[in-house]
Amino acid sequence: MVKINSDYTLLRSSYLFSTIAGKVKEYEQNNPDANIIRLGIGDVTRPLTGTIIDSLHKAVDEMASESTFRGYAPDLGYEFLRSAIARNDYELRGCDISADEIFVSDGAKSDSGNIQEIFSKDCRVAVCDPVYPVYVDTNVMAGRAGTYDEESGKWSNIIYMPCTRETGFLPEIPSETPDIIYLCFPNNPSGSTMTKSRLQEWVDYAVRNKAIIIFDAAYESYIRNEDVPHSIYECEGARECAIELRSFSKNAGFTGVRLGFTVIPKTLSVDGVTLHSLWARRHGTKYNGAPYIVQRAGEAVYSEEGKKEIRGLVDYYMNNATYILNGLKAAGYEVSGGVNAPYIWLKTPKGMSSWEYFDYLLKNASVVGTPGSGFGPSGEGYFRLTAFGDADKTKEAVDRIVNM
Amino acid sequence: MVKINSDYTLLRSSYLFSTIAGKVKEYEQNNPDANIIRLGIGDVTRPLTGTIIDSLHKAVDEMASESTFRGYAPDLGYEFLRSAIARNDYELRGCDISADEIFVSDGAKSDSGNIQEIFSKDCRVAVCDPVYPVYVDTNVMAGRAGTYDEESGKWSNIIYMPCTRETGFLPEIPSETPDIIYLCFPNNPSGSTMTKSRLQEWVDYAVRNKAIIIFDAAYESYIRNEDVPHSIYECEGARECAIELRSFSKNAGFTGVRLGFTVIPKTLSVDGVTLHSLWARRHGTKYNGAPYIVQRAGEAVYSEEGKKEIRGLVDYYMNNATYILNGLKAAGYEVSGGVNAPYIWLKTPKGMSSWEYFDYLLKNASVVGTPGSGFGPSGEGYFRLTAFGDADKTKEAVDRIVNM
Repeated sequence: MVKINSDYTLLRSSYLFSTIAGKVKEYEQNNPDANIIRLGIGDVTRPLTGTIIDSLHKAVDEMASESTFRGYAPDLGYEFLRSAIARNDYELRGCDISADEIFVSDGAKSDSGNIQEIFSKDCRVAVCDPVYPVYVDTNVMAGRAGTYDEESGKWSNIIYMPCTRETGFLPEIPSETPDIIYLCFPNNPSGSTMTKSRLQEWVDYAVRNKAIIIFDAAYESYIRNEDVPHSIYECEGARECAIELRSFSKNAGFTGVRLGFTVIPKTLSVDGVTLHSLWARRHGTKYNGAPYIVQRAGEAVYSEEGKKEIRGLVDYYMNNATYILNGLKAAGYEVSGGVNAPYIWLKTPKGMSSWEYFDYLLKNASVVGTPGSGFGPSGEGYFRLTAFGDADKTKEAVDRIVNM
Repeated sequence: MVKINSDYTLLRSSYLFSTIAGKVKEYEQNNPDANIIRLGIGDVTRPLTGTIIDSLHKAVDEMASESTFRGYAPDLGYEFLRSAIARNDYELRGCDISADEIFVSDGAKSDSGNIQEIFSKDCRVAVCDPVYPVYVDTNVMAGRAGTYDEESGKWSNIIYMPCTRETGFLPEIPSETPDIIYLCFPNNPSGSTMTKSRLQEWVDYAVRNKAIIIFDAAYESYIRNEDVPHSIYECEGARECAIELRSFSKNAGFTGVRLGFTVIPKTLSVDGVTLHSLWARRHGTKYNGAPYIVQRAGEAVYSEEGKKEIRGLVDYYMNNATYILNGLKAAGYEVSGGVNAPYIWLKTPKGMSSWEYFDYLLKNASVVGTPGSGFGPSGEGYFRLTAFGDADKTKEAVDRIVNM
């Protein structure tokens, strides 16, 4: 008789954003005239830029002709894209990463969910708290999280590293030693960043303890400050301890196009086995590559014109971030993030819980944000707004919040 | 200290097609003038058809404008595509499958590799032998296969169902009762098919034993005979025991476009938990949807014009299949498949092993096929040729083989 994976049944109710979607839908039904502004989910709103569109059309045309048609892509991605990534994201930043250490994929969500699979079920996982829910949920599904404690909102086998006002929204070295450490900087949800020297401490710690850092750099294009590293490979020793995840979603607006990549240096070994070989095996066995036309669009992101356009997109969103940040600050909110990141993290006023503030904001301003508690217990009392909205709507949302 | 997933290290050398690619590369280097014809890997060669190309261009243009830009897709796929699938692939064939039982994905390889994840590690898996390697390898990676026996070429915990000349290339009910049964018909690699009454026996067996059938119908568009079911849901009771996997790769030529779907009826429960809810959770947590433009291309496959074009593509490849089948038969080869399937399965001549025949064919005809033994121990002594090549080249390949 067949049995299900019982670890799946441990998962807590439904995914954060599904819950939000449900609440918003209900509000819409009860308030059909409400002009809702969504600053909740981290989805972009600007269309793809001209260079990207041109590259997509061109690649589509190639698929129409026998001589230029492309079937199955190379397992790990097309050379033209991997080379462009290696050159622009790594070589130009002084990072020693080569094209054959890059695995092209359909996005950072898949990669951040699947990457845990190459590790033993016994590994202890450490996450920032609050944290992008996918890291925790996928470890629950793999049976690595232990049991859930309703009271604390924590899993018994997960090491939580609180990132609160008191820690400057950065994790501190935990008292228990983890085997796998998820770090996402610029951070989702708090918008906090780590300086290079601070990240170097984590790299040193991981090397010393033979732990692996899974570094999610999905928001690196929002970095403005010189001392904030764009890649963990800017730190010495990272080739011996770190995997890096990257996305085209938040720089080039590919949330609906789907493209990302994972970097695993060939020098990263555990018990004599390279993690590169394990991930290559997973890629080759359970995945069949990102679409050719999408990989061509990814290549266009690195063209001179493409880079300019992408900077324009990022600037557009960062203007929103600045408006939100300044507006809320002026109104007396305690806010952080929003400087090197598209997320603004605010302390809920009047001692409201995160979900209370969610309901309050929806009811009084018709604005949708994300409750901090949805990202982990230390997110309670905080709230996330994103800068990915339309500029005019974002301004209106801030004005509504301020005058609420 | 971090540890790797030791189940990954159990995997046998590299994936079949990588080995073939290596051998072909070596042959090319040693014989730079050889005009190699590839009838090995199941990749298509015809370009995308006009309707598909138009739909892609149109969707790309939508991504260029703020008002029609699409970000994150709905978790389980766009309604327009799921409805087209439900209507055309199921309703029109009298199958009771609704749009919300369909999960759109980036292809059948991902789905067939990932689907095992929702089941317990204790489940016993049965596969046809020979078989598409992904079913076995992904169960090895999940720790479900036991240990490998070099002598027999079998995993201790996998139930092998030999499909040989003696069984008409169809599986027979195994003596041990499996929990999960992988069936792929029309079959890869042998090109054999199951009649509806024969498939009904498997459905009855699964229902009786509370087993799950994972039915891979990636090749259904090649079916010509009336008594061969296109979907397992044509059988009574399948809603209580079967998951179906589908692909756009082999009908519409999407091997490089990447689109597929999985059907899980909401009536399919194990211990009171619907498999639909588990797969929805996996989809929502580890995946972020197929690209909008690709889902629009999938929709176009179901337009009237699209359907005509797809039939043209399939006919093109089936003409190849007929040519290969008849040519080899006339030359005295023992061949099967190739009637309702794009694969031709031949008995290697002169008692050669599968790999001996691979080398022999490459050396004497510069033709690349796939050794049957690469698909499992009962594939030894057989060889697969595919009909996905260019028509002229396919003819030349057959002529070379016949005159070898």
